[in-house]
This record gives sequence, C-alpha cells and structure tokens, in this order.
Amino acid sequence: MPSRRLFFALAAVLIAPTAHADEGMWMPGQLAEIAAEMRSAGFRGDARRLADVTRPPLSAVVRVGGGTGAFVSQDGLLLTNHHVAYGVIQYNSRPEQDIIEAGFVADGRAGERAANPDFRVLVTVGFDRVTDDVLAGARGRTGRAYFDAVDTASKRIVAECEQSGDVRCSVANMYYGTDFYRIRQLELRDVRLVYAPPRAIGNYGDEIDNFMWPRHTGDFTLLRAYVAPDGRPAGFSPDNAPYAPPAHLRVATTGLHAGDYAMLAGYPGITFRHRTAGEFARQVTHTLPQRVAVFDALIAAVEAAGRDDADVRTRYASQLQSLKNNRKRAAGELEGLLRSDAVRQRSDDETAMLARTRADELGGIEALRAVLAEGDAVAERDLLLGLVASQTQLMRAALLLERLRVESAKPDAERETGYQTRDHALIEGVLRQVQRRFSPSAEQAVLRTLLERYQRLPDAQRLPAFDAAFGRTPDALARALDAVYAASALGDEAARLSRFAEARDGRALEDDPLLALVRPLVAAQLEVEGARKAREGELLRLRPAYMRALFAWRAGQGRAVYPDANGTLRISYGRVEPLSPRDAVTYAPVTTVAGIVEKHTGAAPFDAPQPLLDAIARGDFAGTAEASLGTQPVNFLTNLDTTGGNSGSPVLNARGELVGLNFDSNWESVSASWWFDPRMKRAIHVDMRYMRWLMAKVYPAPALLEEMGLPAQ
Amino acid sequence: MPSRRLFFALAAVLIAPTAHADEGMWMPGQLAEIAAEMRSAGFRGDARRLADVTRPPLSAVVRVGGGTGAFVSQDGLLLTNHHVAYGVIQYNSRPEQDIIEAGFVADGRAGERAANPDFRVLVTVGFDRVTDDVLAGARGRTGRAYFDAVDTASKRIVAECEQSGDVRCSVANMYYGTDFYRIRQLELRDVRLVYAPPRAIGNYGDEIDNFMWPRHTGDFTLLRAYVAPDGRPAGFSPDNAPYAPPAHLRVATTGLHAGDYAMLAGYPGITFRHRTAGEFARQVTHTLPQRVAVFDALIAAVEAAGRDDADVRTRYASQLQSLKNNRKRAAGELEGLLRSDAVRQRSDDETAMLARTRADELGGIEALRAVLAEGDAVAERDLLLGLVASQTQLMRAALLLERLRVESAKPDAERETGYQTRDHALIEGVLRQVQRRFSPSAEQAVLRTLLERYQRLPDAQRLPAFDAAFGRTPDALARALDAVYAASALGDEAARLSRFAEARDGRALEDDPLLALVRPLVAAQLEVEGARKAREGELLRLRPAYMRALFAWRAGQGRAVYPDANGTLRISYGRVEPLSPRDAVTYAPVTTVAGIVEKHTGAAPFDAPQPLLDAIARGDFAGTAEASLGTQPVNFLTNLDTTGGNSGSPVLNARGELVGLNFDSNWESVSASWWFDPRMKRAIHVDMRYMRWLMAKVYPAPALLEEMGLPAQ
Repeated sequence: MPSRRLFFALAAVLIAPTAHADEGMWMPGQLAEIAAEMRSAGFRGDARRLADVTRPPLSAVVRVGGGTGAFVSQDGLLLTNHHVAYGVIQYNSRPEQDIIEAGFVADGRAGERAANPDFRVLVTVGFDRVTDDVLAGARGRTGRAYFDAVDTASKRIVAECEQSGDVRCSVANMYYGTDFYRIRQLELRDVRLVYAPPRAIGNYGDEIDNFMWPRHTGDFTLLRAYVAPDGRPAGFSPDNAPYAPPAHLRVATTGLHAGDYAMLAGYPGITFRHRTAGEFARQVTHTLPQRVAVFDALIAAVEAAGRDDADVRTRYASQLQSLKNNRKRAAGELEGLLRSDAVRQRSDDETAMLARTRADELGGIEALRAVLAEGDAVAERDLLLGLVASQTQLMRAALLLERLRVESAKPDAERETGYQTRDHALIEGVLRQVQRRFSPSAEQAVLRTLLERYQRLPDAQRLPAFDAAFGRTPDALARALDAVYAASALGDEAARLSRFAEARDGRALEDDPLLALVRPLVAAQLEVEGARKAREGELLRLRPAYMRALFAWRAGQGRAVYPDANGTLRISYGRVEPLSPRDAVTYAPVTTVAGIVEKHTGAAPFDAPQPLLDAIARGDFAGTAEASLGTQPVNFLTNLDTTGGNSGSPVLNARGELVGLNFDSNWESVSASWWFDPRMKRAIHVDMRYMRWLMAKVYPAPALLEEMGLPAQ
Repeated sequence: MPSRRLFFALAAVLIAPTAHADEGMWMPGQLAEIAAEMRSAGFRGDARRLADVTRPPLSAVVRVGGGTGAFVSQDGLLLTNHHVAYGVIQYNSRPEQDIIEAGFVADGRAGERAANPDFRVLVTVGFDRVTDDVLAGARGRTGRAYFDAVDTASKRIVAECEQSGDVRCSVANMYYGTDFYRIRQLELRDVRLVYAPPRAIGNYGDEIDNFMWPRHTGDFTLLRAYVAPDGRPAGFSPDNAPYAPPAHLRVATTGLHAGDYAMLAGYPGITFRHRTAGEFARQVTHTLPQRVAVFDALIAAVEAAGRDDADVRTRYASQLQSLKNNRKRAAGELEGLLRSDAVRQRSDDETAMLARTRADELGGIEALRAVLAEGDAVAERDLLLGLVASQTQLMRAALLLERLRVESAKPDAERETGYQTRDHALIEGVLRQVQRRFSPSAEQAVLRTLLERYQRLPDAQRLPAFDAAFGRTPDALARALDAVYAASALGDEAARLSRFAEARDGRALEDDPLLALVRPLVAAQLEVEGARKAREGELLRLRPAYMRALFAWRAGQGRAVYPDANGTLRISYGRVEPLSPRDAVTYAPVTTVAGIVEKHTGAAPFDAPQPLLDAIARGDFAGTAEASLGTQPVNFLTNLDTTGGNSGSPVLNARGELVGLNFDSNWESVSASWWFDPRMKRAIHVDMRYMRWLMAKVYPAPALLEEMGLPAQ
C-alpha cells in the first residue's frame, strides 16, 4: 500500500520536533530582543508594540485573585477562569439559588452581583527598574545585613509609591537579586459577577480530569470591574460605573490548528529554571524523595488513626486529600525530572558555561555553592519542623499564640509579616477553626510520625530545645505527647481565644502545658529563622554572579535569558501542538463536544447538564464549529510556557486576537517549574469558540456577545 | 503553515475507515466463497488453497491447551502464547530453578522438558459434515426428545470415530443446529518445553495491562511435539521422536504497517453474533445489569466479611479477585454494547430481514421467541442458584456429594457429564480443597446475599424445595444457615471424603445436617435441568429457521454468513489498524521497546529483566527493527475478528507468512462476542520481529532460529 507508506514518510517529516524549544516566560521589555524569533515562529504583529505593559494590548491583561484575566470590552468586562472566579460565584450562591450548580447569567448590568469584598483586580500601570535604589544600601554588606538592606529599601520604595493612594506597589526581584523592578498596580475593588457556566461545565471532570488531557472543561467566567463616578477605584457602591480599561482584547471568530502560532500573557508564580546544577541534583536526590517519603508516612499515620474511627475519618478527610495531592505532585515532579534527564542536562550545560566564565566571577559562584550547601545541611529538619506547624491543629495554635506574643511586643512595623495588626483577624480565624479538623489521637500520630523522623536526624541538624521537649527516643516522644495533650486546655475554643487576647497585646499567656512546651521551641525557631535570613542575604548577594555567567554564555549562543517566574507579567509564545506522552499514544491538540458525551456518566464530576447534552445532540454549531473536524471544539493544547498563576491567561493568535483561555497543564509537565521538556510540556486552554457557542446556543447571553463585538447567534 | 494543513488534509483522506467491516470468523470451507473479498482486502494467495484444514498451511494450526498454536518447523516445533503454555512452564519450575521467573532455553533437544501429563496438542485430521446422520433421529420430534436424539446420535458418531484409536472426535454444531460436523483430531500427548521468555517479558504488565493497548508483552513460548518411534501419538518416553507435522508456517523476516493485510487462524470459543434481536435486548436490559448487581453485592459481602478478619481476607483473596474480574467484564460488555448502540442496530437489521422472510419460516421464528421467553422467565433464578454452587465451598461440596450419589446409581454411560467414573479424581480434588478457601462466616454472607435476592423473586421463579429449606424472609434464611453451618460435620475433610466413598458407589450418605438440607435442593435442580434440556431441544429445532432467514437476507446483500464461534478452526482477515477509542486519543498500531522502558518500575508486573533493559540500551536491532520507527517493534494491533480461544493464533501476512502471534484484545472490544464494532474491535499480537530479536540478542537460541529458517544473529 504505497499511499500509506507515503503518509508515514510525510508524517515523519512534518511532525518532527523543531530545534527551537519555545521555552520562555519573557518580560514584556524583552520582546524587542526576541522579535525575530517571534516572527519566525509565526507572529504577525510588531513585537516592540507588546513591550510596554501600560499600553495596549498588554494593558488589557490583569491580575485577578491568584491568577490572570483580560478585559474583553471597553466597559470593563473581564474574562478569567471559572476556578479563578470560584470564590465570587460561591459568595453569590444561596441554597435557594445555587448558582455554583446552575451557573449565572446576569439580567442586564443591574443584575450583576458584587464579588466578596476582598476580591481584587490589579491593573499594572507602572513597571520601572529600581535596581540601584534597592541595592545602594546593600552593596559592601553580606549575610543578614545584605538581606535587611534590600528589605528596608524595598519597603521604603513601596511606601513612597503608595502615598499617592489608589495604587498597590511592590518590588519584584528579577534574576535572583540581579535586578529589581517597582510595580505599580491600580487596585479595582468593585468587581461583579456577570456570567458563569454551571459547575458541571466550568469544572467538568474536576479532580479526576485535573492535569489531564484530553480535556473537556468550559473553565471560564466573565466579571466586570466598576469604579467610582470620578473614575477612581472604590469599594462596591450602586453609584459606581463600569471601569474603562486602557485596552481590551478582541475575541477571534476563528480558531487555531496544529502547528499554528500562539502566545499568552499572564502572571506566572514561581519557577526554578535558572537554579544551579547542584540545586537540580539536590531536588532529585533529596528534596523530592524526602517529600514523597514524609507524605507517605503522614498518609499512613492519618489513615491508621481513622481506620476504626469514623469521626477521625470525617475530620481528617480534607487534610488527607491534601496530603495525597502533595504526595502525588512531588512524585509527579520527580518522575518528570527523571524522565527528562534534567539533572544531567542541566549539569552538562552548567559545566560548559563555567568553562567559559571569567575567572573573577568563579569565586562568587563557588561561594554561592557553599551557602547552598549550608541550607542543604538543615533542609530535612526544616521540612519536618515546617510540617509540625502546618499539619497539626492544636500544636499550630500553640505555636501561633506564642509567636504572636513575641512579635506583638515589638512596634507593629517591625513585626514579622503575618503577625502584624492587620493579620489578627486571620489568626483569630485559624484559632477558631481548630475543632472542625482536630482529633487528639490523630494529631499525636502525625506528630509522632514527624518527630520520630526528626529524632533520627544527625546531631548537627537537631535543636537542643526540641530534643529537650520531645526526648531522644520514640518512647520518650510518645510519653511527652501523651502527657501534654492530656493536660492542655487549648482544645477548648474559649481557652484559645482568651490567650489570643493576651498574645496580641504582647502580654504573658495564661499557663498551659502545651504553651509551656512550645515556648522554647518558638525561641529556637526564631534562631533558625535568623540563620535562614542570613543565608538568603548571601544568596541575594551571590546569585547575580551566576546569572551574569549565564547571560554571557547564552549571549554567545545568540539566546536571551528570561528571569524565573516571580508573579510579574510575562509573555510566552509557541504553537498548538499534539502530545505523544508514551510509546504509541498520541493526543490530538483539539478536543470536541463528542468527548463530553463520552465522559458523561450522570454522576459528578461527569454530569454534563441536560441543556448542554441536548444542544450537542441538536448539533447546531454554525459559526463556532471547527471545519476540519466537522464539529464543535472545546479545549486545545499548546506548548506555551506556563506555571501556577497563569490560570486565566489570554491566549492570542498571530494577529493578537483572543483565541483561548489558559486553565491547566498536562500531568507530564508538573516538573516544568524546574525543567521545560519540549516533548512533554503542554498548556491546556478553553477554545473561545466553545465559550461563544455556550453563550450563543446553550445558556444565551446575546447582549454580552454583542458587547464583545461577537455574533449573538 | 500551509505544510501542516496539507498534512492534516492528507491524514483525513488516508486514514478514513473503509466501508468493509472486516467482521467474520470463517470456516475454512467458506474461503472459496469469500475469495474475492479477501483478494480485494490485500490477500495475495489462493483462498481456495486455505479451504482444507487437513492440508498446508491450515494443517499447521493446532489446538493447544485452551488456545491455539502453530507448527513452525518440520520437527514439530510449536509456537503458542506464554499464557497458553503457562501450566507447562509452571510444571517444570522448581524453587532451585525458577524458570517462570528466569525463563527457559532448552540445552539442545535432550534438554527439552516434558509437559504436565494432561497437556495436549490436537491436530485436526478430519472435518466432515454429518448433519443428516445427527438429525435423522431428531426430525419429527420436539423438546427433550429432540435434544436427546441429537445427543445420542452425537455420542454414537464420536464413539464410532474414536474406535480406530489415536484420534479424539467431536461433533460441532454450526449455525445453532442447522449443520453438524464431525471433527477428528490427532491427540499428541508427549509435548515438551523448548523456549520460554522470563515471566517479566512473557507476562509484562500482567493484570494491569490485560486488555490494554498500547502493550509491550512478549507473550510467546516454543514447545515441541513428540511421537512414538512408529509415528503414532504416545505418552512421554525418552525413545519418542519429534513429530513431523503435515505442514509448518514460515516466519516472516519483515513486519506489517498500518493498513497492511493480515489474517489469523485459530479456535475461537464462543460468540453470540447471530442471536435474535430479543436476545440482544435481554442481554443489555437484564442479563448484564443483573450480573453487575449480583457481583457488586457479592464483592461487598466478601469485603465486609474480611474487614476485621485477616484470615478471611487471605482465604477469599482469590475469589474476590475473580468476582471483581467477572464484575468488570460484565460492566465492560454492557458499556461496549451501549456505546455501539448494538441493540438498536441488531433490531433494525432483524426487522428488515423478517420483512423479507418467507411466511412459512415466520412461524418457526415466532415459536423460537416463545421458547426464549420461557428461559428468560427463570434466568435470574438460574443465575442465583448457579452462584450458590460456584461461589461457595462447603455448600458446593454438599451439592456435589448428593448429585454424585444420585448419578452413581445409574450405569456409567447414562450419568450426567462431570459425574462419570472418569470424573471422580476431579471431584475428590474439589472436596479436598475446601479448607484452603473457606470460612463459615464468609460463606454464610455469600449465601445470604444470593438467597435474599432469590427470596425476592416472583413466585413463578422460586422453587418450593428452596423456599422450604431457607424460608421466605432474610431472618428465616439467616437462622437456617446458622443452624446448619453450626451443626454440619462437612467442614472436616475426613467427613467429606468418607461421604465421597459412599456417593461414588451410589450408596446412602452418612447423615449430616447440610446433606439433609441439600437433598431436596438437588432433586429440585434435577427438575430445573430437565426443563432446561427440553428448552434446549426446542432451540436446536427452531433456531435453524432463523438462520435460514439470515442466509437468505445476507445472500440478497451479497454477503456470506459465518457461524458463531464454537471452538472449531476459523479464519479471520483484516488489516493492521490504529485505534481511536476516545475524543482526541489515537493509539498507533505498533509499539516499540521504548514503551518497555517507560513502563518499567522495577516492581512486578513492570519489572523488565536487566538483560532486556541492557539490550534495549545497546540498541542493536539490526535485522529486526521497524525502519519507519527506527527501533525495535514489540506488539501490533489489527482489526481481526477474535475471541477467547484465539490465544496463540498465528497472524499471517498477505503471502501467508507468520508475522505475529495473537494474545489479547483491547478493553473496548470486550462486547465483541455479541457485536463487532469496527471502530473499537482490535486484536493484539506479538510482532515476530520481537521474538526473533529476543531469541537472537537477549536470550539467544541460535539453533532454534536456524531450525525455523531464520538468521541466528
């Protein structure tokens, strides 16, 4: 059959991976530098026009909750993910009108519903390099002094910047202390819910499909930002008017196909791509295996505690789920790094780089390694002691109360973040919630699991205060825990709240065995924290040498270096691309409504609403169908470089039109925060044609489509 | 990117499914009839030459254990699946030389190991139509008399056929009583183990990958058949010589690609493709949902019984696994039939057929439906009472003893199959094994689960004897079971074996409460059995009318009709074909050694042996690589029509050369025993190039390769 042979020969030529990796979360200001690459990848606009975050189109891209969003009309209509806006939907849901389940279509602007008061949309209005200002006081210093100088300068810059009011400012650290930028963001506080699909569309597949491809989720929601009549940000008021954004994106009426250019803008949270080869190795040989092992042990302990106790099972169900998610995530990251051979590749690259690095920089890099080694030496202890606080309820409450007492003795501005006056409400909430998720036996099992591991650490890692409190053997530990949990009164909410009143005033706390136990522990933790800040100061001082070596090495290769993600606005570009995660398995890059029906079981999370199933059966996809598939597309897949925080990022075509909404990644790219493997890294988007079809034919909102300049039918 | 557009346009044209369904398990004698279709599908040989099962190449295809095999040398070398020959491997494994784990390569012919004495290879030497002989005494009769006449004639034909010795004979019923064939098979009893890969190659992936594609299993083993020096079948003797088969298959040195013609010969066990539309509907609306519900209830009962009892968990682990497999299989079959819309399609086809059926046949078809309805009316009862025997240990033993007592009172030839003198050893084995898998509390839980359902059946289904024994309420049932299980002595092996001695002589059994309980139950079951045989007689008499209508209807469409599978030699043809089981998911039809490494975890069942991993890493695939993939192929996928019994079937290319060895199907085709869905039905094969590579480079056996006429390197 020669025609089939021809097909495979062609396939081999046409789908061979290109040399260019499409890796990169670029600062807008870098786009001019990579304009040629973007054009050769298929971009049809002017890359330099994208460079200014305060001008269109990037000024349409905003920070929403913990994710990203984009304005899509001149009247402040804002598109983001259903899961990013979930709190807003939940806040407006009532037993008698469950809009989480049923979805929501506002009845005109008057019908739009105010978001929870703490919900914010941030519009970036300034992005300025302040490196010299930040580092002026730090130069010549080392360790903790370096750290404090950077911290003090940053706080001063923020305070000065915010004096004008209306804007929220921050200082972003680029390239690990190499550069600092002052970011000014307009803080919009009156945000309203406009359109949300039903839960079983916006979150179709839920946890089962999370990180999965092929995917069939309508993970989008429309909000609208409002401002005071004078145009300034304000809290909710019926007198407010829609915010006129500096720009809005045009929704495309066409879609993308495999190989087509795509780009995305958003606020990716954190990546580790430019960490040293030693840090990569450490992650694979120690950090991730330790996390997997500790989470496994905690899961086993909590499950054993609940085996014959239904009450414990109920109270710890959520914590157990979270432990399992953490375990799965760490194991997935480890698996991905091993599969991609990331440690070897990073090491080879670093070796080649250092061979060409100027001798005067090598000293700094050597010193950097020594500081990293100091941190490694106490990493397992810090992991375990961190979990002692985060995986317990009563112990956490006691640690929180004692630390609050210590911090409250200082002037408010000097207190550690999290213990200032503005944090009191949050702390009180934590102290009130202990009961719901607490059982003394389960908590002691968790503590035994963590502290027995702590007891086995080498002497150099252990702290005398902890050894004194918990002894050196499992038996001593069990006795100490039994005694203190039997005697403590903190299991009683009133007892905790009376201590809270004392602690926030910096007064001595009424006696309690658990508080007596934690007092020296908190003191020890303060010392540990001081040492950590000194190390962080050194890292801030020394990492720039490593980054300079990287800049030089990449420049020699003709490649620019993007900074690791840090929650600031970035742009990625790449293309629509299928995924072949395993031998003989290929996933097409576009899914269709057929998959919704295939996955439908009638039970959550695969309980597609009847109106959706009926509309699919009717098959009226005119205007929103994908011609090559002859049906309605739902989600699509690109090789765009994303991480947490990119939820809700607009995906644009070569002409800068909005074609998709980013909402997830595939499981195989869980390790991409460290290493971008072009064979495996994919981002998952809602196809705007699916949103348009839902809004036109299933849960109609013709006025909103018209507002976005789209056909209403 | 126009080149990519071109690619997808080409892909759409080239991989579009063809109209021809490739359905059919053809009797060799039918191949002349479908020769044109086979040629147009790509067959390059003479279909008529395939028609005679006693001549090459079909005479190379033999029955092995419960599956199929094929001779691959003139010296009796025989290729079949690792899982078909597993008993032989196990029989030869020793703690000090665990050849299951390590695999086995015979050290010359003298090193070949005798199989377990009951292992048989059957070579078909005669296949003759005996319809008139079988039906002569039945014509004019009905019901049980029709059944008995067919049964008696069949037994007589078999006895006459076997008089010559050396051959085993049987009468096969084709097209549900329309035609009967006498099959004569040479019974080879000296079979030896020649070559087996290690367990982690031959069964790589085990239960996890069972029914799965993509697959990476080397499920093959080589045996050799021996005969006495005079050439006649004989039991093992060192004087025996290799059997010279009437033909052997030539192993191809090339492989297949997507779209290439393939065909397969083997002994498929049972299918239901030509059952009536009413039987299809019944399967989907009653039979499968009932099975799923009953297995769910049994699983829950056994799990509950083991919740706080480790001993019960151990004793019932295997039964629980089997219940879960049965449940999964029934649910999968139901899911597949629903997905394929099989009931509607079968019903539409039957309606069209009946509209063109001669009026004088319609009466018979109407009568057939009435008999089927009689069986439906007691189907749930028969399911439950069948499980009462098959899912218990002590109850089964009691039922077996009482039935044996009843049957043993008759002359041996008149006893029911399974209770004749030659069955005594098997029955004794069952009676001895009770202890290993028995707990009184778990067994009572199983019985309560089944019999409470029985109690809820309508009056017409229930049997007075069972009502009397177990009462009409769950309470009465529980009391009856408690009393009899507390008082019975049959839990003691000696007590069972002493009754066995009595039962096989047809003597009265020493009193026991459980035996007293089952006595009237067995009597009632005998009546039920009589009624069933009467119905079966009517079905034998009436189904041919339905088949004749089908022959006429298909003839009008220019299509031949193959008989439903019944364990006789059949041929399927079709092609290598990818699988797209779900939206956006495509599985390539050829897997490679890369997938072995991807799946390898080091823990069974994904613990690829180190020599295999090393050989993959070396990458020496010269002579066995797939050029288009640039690596070593492992398994491949076709749309060939197969079912249980086709394990070990040789897969041939268009020139009749051996290119693969069938060993499994994909999960989506679990419903294919009823309905062949060309979109979903696939068969999974070992690529002969993988076998050749393993035998040349990993676990070398150059002499065997040479014997098969293959390059030894």
